[in-house]
Amino acid sequence: MMEYVKQPKEIEDKSMKIIRPYLEGMDLSEEEIAVYSRTIHASGDVEYAKLVTTSQDAVAAGLNALKNGADIYCDVEMVRTGINKKALAQLGGEVFCQVSAPEIAEAAKAEGITRSIAAMRAYGKRLDGNIVAIGNAPTALYEVLRLCSEENIRPVLIVGIPVGFVGAAESKEALVEQAPVPFVTVRGNKGGSPIAASVINALLYLLVQRTQMLYIEPNK
Amino acid sequence: MMEYVKQPKEIEDKSMKIIRPYLEGMDLSEEEIAVYSRTIHASGDVEYAKLVTTSQDAVAAGLNALKNGADIYCDVEMVRTGINKKALAQLGGEVFCQVSAPEIAEAAKAEGITRSIAAMRAYGKRLDGNIVAIGNAPTALYEVLRLCSEENIRPVLIVGIPVGFVGAAESKEALVEQAPVPFVTVRGNKGGSPIAASVINALLYLLVQRTQMLYIEPNK
Repeated sequence: MMEYVKQPKEIEDKSMKIIRPYLEGMDLSEEEIAVYSRTIHASGDVEYAKLVTTSQDAVAAGLNALKNGADIYCDVEMVRTGINKKALAQLGGEVFCQVSAPEIAEAAKAEGITRSIAAMRAYGKRLDGNIVAIGNAPTALYEVLRLCSEENIRPVLIVGIPVGFVGAAESKEALVEQAPVPFVTVRGNKGGSPIAASVINALLYLLVQRTQMLYIEPNK
Repeated sequence: MMEYVKQPKEIEDKSMKIIRPYLEGMDLSEEEIAVYSRTIHASGDVEYAKLVTTSQDAVAAGLNALKNGADIYCDVEMVRTGINKKALAQLGGEVFCQVSAPEIAEAAKAEGITRSIAAMRAYGKRLDGNIVAIGNAPTALYEVLRLCSEENIRPVLIVGIPVGFVGAAESKEALVEQAPVPFVTVRGNKGGSPIAASVINALLYLLVQRTQMLYIEPNK
């Protein structure tokens, strides 16, 4: 019989100890370290220590919003799946993703835009005071920036972490340069759904007393 | 108004062209290049070119199984979410994940094991002739290897790509050394749900004529 660590809580504590040295000397608060650590934990990639970029107020803004029951609007189902909905529910928040809804497919076709754009556009005013979490589609992130600039929509936090080689890095630079609200992103090509979800979960775990249940399956 | 590429098909084609040079000179078949490319596409990380490891027969075995309607058994919901179920359904296959089922939580508690182990153990014989896709839990991967060695279970392909700093790399080395069946993995700490799903999707897209619908949201 193979011998290996079977306790998720123990695995996570050990992981965080291994990750910590990569974040030393970076002038981060303990809360920011929790966010950065979880992106490294989710990717298995210590380079995230250098790639994560946040506005100065982002972590505080996210914590404050979640504490007050903010909802989370995602670009794709994988981000929704990755967010710990039990922890979020304890704070009164919900996660939404409508990219697969038939009416969004119709709107996208009618307007000649991607479903990711159509989904964010359809949320519109609902994003005010809530959190946006984007882990896949540069087009969704651009649309949220357009909603901010042209329609004066104001999420409290944009977690914008699309992944890939065409448009993703550019969309994240646009976020850094143009976001009129707090943001968390990852510079360059890397990113993706589990990274976006990990940022939200890091914030949640700073607020919610995690039970053994939550430790066993942090992504459920 | 910001200008950016809005056509998913175009984005994907461009991405694959950018990724291709990183796979030159590696003695890979076109089908293997498709699999490797999609892990890079999903992570935004060209290092996957050097980290992906497959048994020689893995891609052929996966294609053959999917063509014959094989099902896919996942360790976590994020892998299930990431797999293109429309494409899989066209071939007659289904995706399963029971880690969140109440009876699995009960079995885990009763036996003092993780839910990931309990879920794979409960599948048991159902894995025979089907595909296992693991993107999160080293414990699930170890359990599948135990099912193979101690209970003579024989999936046709193990996609084993847990992520992290404690146990993940070791579990993947165990897969490389011990798997009695074809496998795809990623050496070291990197990996995760979108990477495991991307391997399955790469195989699916070699078999299924993708429609514009599928291109727009490949992860739905």
